[in-house]
Amino acid sequence: MIIDVLRATSTIAAALHNGAKSIIPVDSVAECIKLGKQMEAVTAGERDGQIAEGLEYGNSPFTYPAEFIKGKTLVLTTTNGTKLLHMALSENAKGIITGSFSNLSAVCNYITEQKQNVILACAAWKDRVNLEDTLFAGAVVNRIKESFSINCDASKIAETLYVEAEDDLYEFMKKKNASHYHRLMNFGLEKDIRYCFTIDNHNVLPLYKDGRLVAKQDAMN
Amino acid sequence: MIIDVLRATSTIAAALHNGAKSIIPVDSVAECIKLGKQMEAVTAGERDGQIAEGLEYGNSPFTYPAEFIKGKTLVLTTTNGTKLLHMALSENAKGIITGSFSNLSAVCNYITEQKQNVILACAAWKDRVNLEDTLFAGAVVNRIKESFSINCDASKIAETLYVEAEDDLYEFMKKKNASHYHRLMNFGLEKDIRYCFTIDNHNVLPLYKDGRLVAKQDAMN
Repeated sequence: MIIDVLRATSTIAAALHNGAKSIIPVDSVAECIKLGKQMEAVTAGERDGQIAEGLEYGNSPFTYPAEFIKGKTLVLTTTNGTKLLHMALSENAKGIITGSFSNLSAVCNYITEQKQNVILACAAWKDRVNLEDTLFAGAVVNRIKESFSINCDASKIAETLYVEAEDDLYEFMKKKNASHYHRLMNFGLEKDIRYCFTIDNHNVLPLYKDGRLVAKQDAMN
Repeated sequence: MIIDVLRATSTIAAALHNGAKSIIPVDSVAECIKLGKQMEAVTAGERDGQIAEGLEYGNSPFTYPAEFIKGKTLVLTTTNGTKLLHMALSENAKGIITGSFSNLSAVCNYITEQKQNVILACAAWKDRVNLEDTLFAGAVVNRIKESFSINCDASKIAETLYVEAEDDLYEFMKKKNASHYHRLMNFGLEKDIRYCFTIDNHNVLPLYKDGRLVAKQDAMN
């Protein structure tokens, strides 16, 4: 499961739940522009908090309401998320999904039903661990631990952190002045942060299949 | 600061506090045997919880009371700790010290006085984060945070974990069934674990200088 709470995997959940046909994750802006033209798709991605030059939209989940995104394909460039995706592919993962607080229940139910080994892959920020992805991994561990055997200290650390924070995730991020909280607040994105810490507001299961993310019911077709 | 609570840096604190002249960290058993002979030094190190073949002693802090180790040189092989040491050297660290709960106050006082940037380097276990080193890093952050500017989420996670655990560190390790706790308990080493979670029982400052670790007062000579 790929986790990039602020904001790639939250935005993926929002767009798919609001009816996007599929989301194609790519690692570069150039690739995003190219594919967008070829497929007549919506292009999106940010660099340093701004919409990247040549792309149409940014990384906010609010950008993708149903009246805009329904039935469309979105090409999304995310540096960290795409790197994790390639790692998962090279490890021959049996399935790849993306997770965020927006679709916590959907991903937890899915991995519990699947009864397979699960890796919670946190995107982090420039190869450094971050608070929000760790909190989300902890939320997953907290929900699914009765169904799995968990022998890694990182999971235990993440769960301890989540239990400490769960009463008010946003306040916890604020109190700790998490690095990404700080960064997004400087861009005036408090609304985004609060939204990305709302549980199950887009409770969809994004499945990676043939180079694109689709909502589970679409993947079954 | 190099951190390997179970048990390398705890044992280093014990041996230096009990009067060892110096400790030479090496990465291989072969190097340990060779240096031990050349210097007529005590050799120590474990592999998979047993004293490594060809060496004399193990990694327990109880092995090095003053009546045994005073005035002697100890050649110690530790895989994870030595790797971190080489990383610190290649980064041109201005100073290298080792930390454990056994000498928490000594290392915190030292880094606060030095007013330099500090990296808390957790040895972990086979490149995976572990609970005990994270707890110790959190204890350090908790003690020194007023004197430093800290902008990394890992520090905040570690401190949150420590604050949750500080009332009884041993019980926390047990409750979480930390991987290394589990491993050492299987070797009957509960006594070692409890000892390694005792604060300031060997409150010495181990400084790395010219290939060896010495207690601070010795380093000044």
